[in-house]
Amino acid sequence: MNNFNFYSPTHFVFGKNRENEVGTFVKRFGGTRVLIHFGGGSVVKSGLLNRVKTSLAAENIYFTELGGVLPNPRSGLVYKGIEICKQENIDFILAVGGGSVIDSSKAIALGALYDGDFWDFYMGKLVEKALPVATILTISAAGSEGSTGSVITHENGMLKRAANSDALRPVFSVLNPELTCTLPNYQTACGATDMMAHVMERYFTNTQNVEITDRLCEGILLTVIKETPKALADSTNYESRANIMWAGMVAHNDICGVGRDQDWSSHQMEHELSGLYDVAHGAGLAVIFPAWMKYVMNHNVMRFAQFAVRVWGCEMDFQSPEKTAIQGIERYEQFMTSIGMPIRFSELGAKAEDIPTLVKTMQLGNRTLGSFVKLTEEDVRKIYELAV
Amino acid sequence: MNNFNFYSPTHFVFGKNRENEVGTFVKRFGGTRVLIHFGGGSVVKSGLLNRVKTSLAAENIYFTELGGVLPNPRSGLVYKGIEICKQENIDFILAVGGGSVIDSSKAIALGALYDGDFWDFYMGKLVEKALPVATILTISAAGSEGSTGSVITHENGMLKRAANSDALRPVFSVLNPELTCTLPNYQTACGATDMMAHVMERYFTNTQNVEITDRLCEGILLTVIKETPKALADSTNYESRANIMWAGMVAHNDICGVGRDQDWSSHQMEHELSGLYDVAHGAGLAVIFPAWMKYVMNHNVMRFAQFAVRVWGCEMDFQSPEKTAIQGIERYEQFMTSIGMPIRFSELGAKAEDIPTLVKTMQLGNRTLGSFVKLTEEDVRKIYELAV
Repeated sequence: MNNFNFYSPTHFVFGKNRENEVGTFVKRFGGTRVLIHFGGGSVVKSGLLNRVKTSLAAENIYFTELGGVLPNPRSGLVYKGIEICKQENIDFILAVGGGSVIDSSKAIALGALYDGDFWDFYMGKLVEKALPVATILTISAAGSEGSTGSVITHENGMLKRAANSDALRPVFSVLNPELTCTLPNYQTACGATDMMAHVMERYFTNTQNVEITDRLCEGILLTVIKETPKALADSTNYESRANIMWAGMVAHNDICGVGRDQDWSSHQMEHELSGLYDVAHGAGLAVIFPAWMKYVMNHNVMRFAQFAVRVWGCEMDFQSPEKTAIQGIERYEQFMTSIGMPIRFSELGAKAEDIPTLVKTMQLGNRTLGSFVKLTEEDVRKIYELAV
Repeated sequence: MNNFNFYSPTHFVFGKNRENEVGTFVKRFGGTRVLIHFGGGSVVKSGLLNRVKTSLAAENIYFTELGGVLPNPRSGLVYKGIEICKQENIDFILAVGGGSVIDSSKAIALGALYDGDFWDFYMGKLVEKALPVATILTISAAGSEGSTGSVITHENGMLKRAANSDALRPVFSVLNPELTCTLPNYQTACGATDMMAHVMERYFTNTQNVEITDRLCEGILLTVIKETPKALADSTNYESRANIMWAGMVAHNDICGVGRDQDWSSHQMEHELSGLYDVAHGAGLAVIFPAWMKYVMNHNVMRFAQFAVRVWGCEMDFQSPEKTAIQGIERYEQFMTSIGMPIRFSELGAKAEDIPTLVKTMQLGNRTLGSFVKLTEEDVRKIYELAV
């Protein structure tokens, strides 16, 4: 096991109606002038935004608002948010939405305390400070409600890049599973795919003897595999929504990823896809992951066999472990198909002829991608081709 | 799933040699005058105490020390620690040891900021504040390095009682698995038993549909079951020690216990045992748990069958699930025996004729104990009798 630090100080406020406590929590964490950041009209239409405002007003907390975050959140709105923060002396950002809203909020939180261009942090500048961010989660997927990360697409070149820092961990996150009961099935399935991907980026590692985090990873995957079809069959199934929501958090606050090398090459390959085509992140991951698995499987067949047996319930083929390994990948594909996810370029609307562009935009050059297998530009191209 | 709050802000500093960073971390968390609290001579003999002092001195942090904590920590030393804190204006407590040292440190942290008797908090008074506590863990077991709890035995009557509060979560905890490599096998086994018990107190619940926390619980148990025999066979097996150490933390910081009713009756019944006989907490749990399981099994046979199948790898008997359930309990007993734990009163040195005393000391009266099955005084007596 590798040495590590683990620090997840977010206060999670989980369950029915908990968003009505948001005013109390903002006050407790020192917020006095709040920017409420959100996406489209659903937050307004559902009455959630009003409930949030009522709760803030009850604590005499000043607030202003900025809506309009799109999936694969763009830099344009971030610049606007930063401007508002500086003009209005905002000291607290409240994200009401899913991963895109939270990531956009984290970017604003960075830029609000920085004189330069916030994008510097997404190009590698070390984060030192940010305004406190809190979240009211409406989509279980990104895990951004408990994570250090933020992913933003810059409109200049459609570059999709990430920033990471403990300073970006939300101070509190309200997780009310009821808020996710109105999601279309496609978004629910994309969310499930994203959280499974967060686990798998950690699961496929070269670090030996990490049984505790292996088992936690497997437990999260087993849960998502069991509960997602139930949520799709009945979108109002509170219990399934609740299990999925907590699974999405533990999948990405790193409790299941510490002490081991992590990969993250599939995420980067997906970022190029959703950067170019503006497809849903989860859908892109469903397409990339099987291709990546097939390409790297022989690097450690027994790890893929373990994945097949423990996560997918396959019978171990003791004579030909690689057959078990392949079966695990097939079961992943079948599950993705069963929940309505694409698993090939054509189903996603991506095109084989764009592969050179995808590879070029990644700007990998002589560097390599990932850690399970260190991928060259040529490897990346072949993986995209396997996904066609 | 029940509504819940989850807040685990402890900064975990995990891995080889990490205790040498303790000065930096104390400074980061605002400590300027430190009480180093520890147990017996092993911390001194191993050189750990010196390394800690060197690290504090390097940051020009003032420190004083108080050793002598015993297993099942007593109130006497707590009163002494509180006196030192008040006299010396201590603002930070550093526990160097296992659960007993950490729990004693938490008690001192409570008393140092309170004008009354610290014992009030162990008799139910609400905790409002405490000095910051940090830990350098030397025994994987209690989970106190990441938990809200502290258990102390008052010498007046040998009452063993617990206090709980977010204010008692350590601000940071250093977990270096190497420090546990010199433990005698008996202590290692007691530690494994304790962390398994922490999981099982959460696992056996009446809350339905908590798959995510079920799976996390099972993952922790599977890890401890796999790694403990390896650590016993070769006490210097770093990888097993590391897995066990992180398992002990996640077993008790409540990440695997949120959103569900928890039981904790076995812990209370054990507290009476170790209060009376001063036996190791883990050993007492190994004796109580099988008896409790047998007594309550019929309340939810399928939950015990799930435990048997998922944790112990038993074949499900679909015609007679209760046979599978019983098999799971037997496997737990066999595992305990295999790691050198007692499973009956006689092996522990407890006596059947003391049962009335054990029951009486609990002072249950007309109240009930636990939540999976609400135990009356009569039930408690019968469970002790099953353990004879």
